[in-house]
Amino acid sequence: MHTVLESRSKTVTIGHDQPFCVIGERINPTGRKVFSEELRGGDLSRVREDAIAQVEAGADMLDVNAGIPLVDEPELLKQMLAVVQETTDVPICIDSSVISALEAGLSVYEGKALVNSVTGEDERLEEILPLVARYGAAVIGLANDETGIPETPQQRLDIARKIVSAAGDFGIPPEDVVIDPLAMTVGADTEAVKVTLEAIRLIRDELGVNMSLGASNVSFGLPQRHALGGAFLPMAMAAGLTSAIMSCAREIVDSVRAADLLLGHDEWGARWIAAHRERQAQEAAAGS
Amino acid sequence: MHTVLESRSKTVTIGHDQPFCVIGERINPTGRKVFSEELRGGDLSRVREDAIAQVEAGADMLDVNAGIPLVDEPELLKQMLAVVQETTDVPICIDSSVISALEAGLSVYEGKALVNSVTGEDERLEEILPLVARYGAAVIGLANDETGIPETPQQRLDIARKIVSAAGDFGIPPEDVVIDPLAMTVGADTEAVKVTLEAIRLIRDELGVNMSLGASNVSFGLPQRHALGGAFLPMAMAAGLTSAIMSCAREIVDSVRAADLLLGHDEWGARWIAAHRERQAQEAAAGS
Repeated sequence: MHTVLESRSKTVTIGHDQPFCVIGERINPTGRKVFSEELRGGDLSRVREDAIAQVEAGADMLDVNAGIPLVDEPELLKQMLAVVQETTDVPICIDSSVISALEAGLSVYEGKALVNSVTGEDERLEEILPLVARYGAAVIGLANDETGIPETPQQRLDIARKIVSAAGDFGIPPEDVVIDPLAMTVGADTEAVKVTLEAIRLIRDELGVNMSLGASNVSFGLPQRHALGGAFLPMAMAAGLTSAIMSCAREIVDSVRAADLLLGHDEWGARWIAAHRERQAQEAAAGS
Repeated sequence: MHTVLESRSKTVTIGHDQPFCVIGERINPTGRKVFSEELRGGDLSRVREDAIAQVEAGADMLDVNAGIPLVDEPELLKQMLAVVQETTDVPICIDSSVISALEAGLSVYEGKALVNSVTGEDERLEEILPLVARYGAAVIGLANDETGIPETPQQRLDIARKIVSAAGDFGIPPEDVVIDPLAMTVGADTEAVKVTLEAIRLIRDELGVNMSLGASNVSFGLPQRHALGGAFLPMAMAAGLTSAIMSCAREIVDSVRAADLLLGHDEWGARWIAAHRERQAQEAAAGS
């Protein structure tokens, strides 16, 4: 199953037979005080910098979130999307919990966006899915609902199935629903990753849809987060994860590209070897 | 199921509920020209150095191999085992394809060794298993036989089952058989890792035994081998691998310990956090 996203000039395909889709997480003011203040003051220079840096580091898509308290989020999100679209050519994941902001974002987006996100809650499904359908977008469906975060993989599968079915009712095909199986913090629950991996495997086997998750959650509060992210993503990819909203730190992106090669999504290591040669050339140039 | 190995003073337990067992691969003259020449000339200083370095880098056990053409392998293996046993206190994996060398090694080993290895070939089973039983050792059983390396996970499971059964005939319990599901080179076969991961999962589900493999094979001939090893092992661990004969490069050992944490084998990250603090202290000391 292929989820196809588009910018004005570029197409990205998410699929179980494709290289993993790296979605840069960085353009998000949550927990970034200086960035929030800059955005609040109308300074969007860091949006541009973060966009360029993440694409250079290997991002296939960029997540863009404008969630700052007491800010006109629809307006800010439109401005941020304009900056990202003029700075880079990768497709965008439009990220908001505010429906008017999602609509504002979709209205200025040139291409086929990924909407982040809907949940399995009836009210959210009924509000967000028509918007996704109207703009011909794809949508991330979080495997939680009115009852909270399900503890078992089977419950997450059930909610995923409900979201895929509800999307169908609005004319959105299963390939345009990317399920988020939920990655919780292992520092708060030692079983968290095992549950996520099992949910990924179940959803892959039963629904066959693409999946994405917020990979940084897993290592929250622990030291050496890049090493944890670099170990988590290959495990999740082997289970069936096809995309993640994630840090583009070199160590983590390298792990993802290594896992692509190991899982047969980088035939004969062509991309891996090319990246290695490019890095060698850069290092030689820097050293000379 | 727990495989318990012992040195004179130390016990290591391999199991699906245990931290991953890292077996240092380095004390092996295969492909090491200088080391081979030193050993041939009776200079065992590098054995000592490699033993210490690997244990410092996080090895739970050490593999020791004395396979040099035209050398008295039983005698050399005895000498190397003596050096490793007086230098470190970790249990040893006695590694040879020569039965008289395995016997010589077992005769001087103090503790419960892991014998590396037997295959599913009738002749090898009948020669090696009595030796393993006589010395009360454990044994690695390679999932290949007279017909070569099986292409399918199911065939590897079948051979694993045969080895476990044959071991039982000689009074060796299943917990003392560690199956090697075979990790082939992904650079030669893009499906190789997928087959290995599926074989691990099958053997885990059907036999429940512990497993070990030679992890470095996977990345043979490719650049940035540590990054590939660091992505491969977490995937294999999530599938059910409980041990590996592997490089103790920091990047790879870090990935294994990260995966231990993520899979719930390092409760609340105690070991991970302690290692991080120790490293910080060392770096602070080095910088001062």
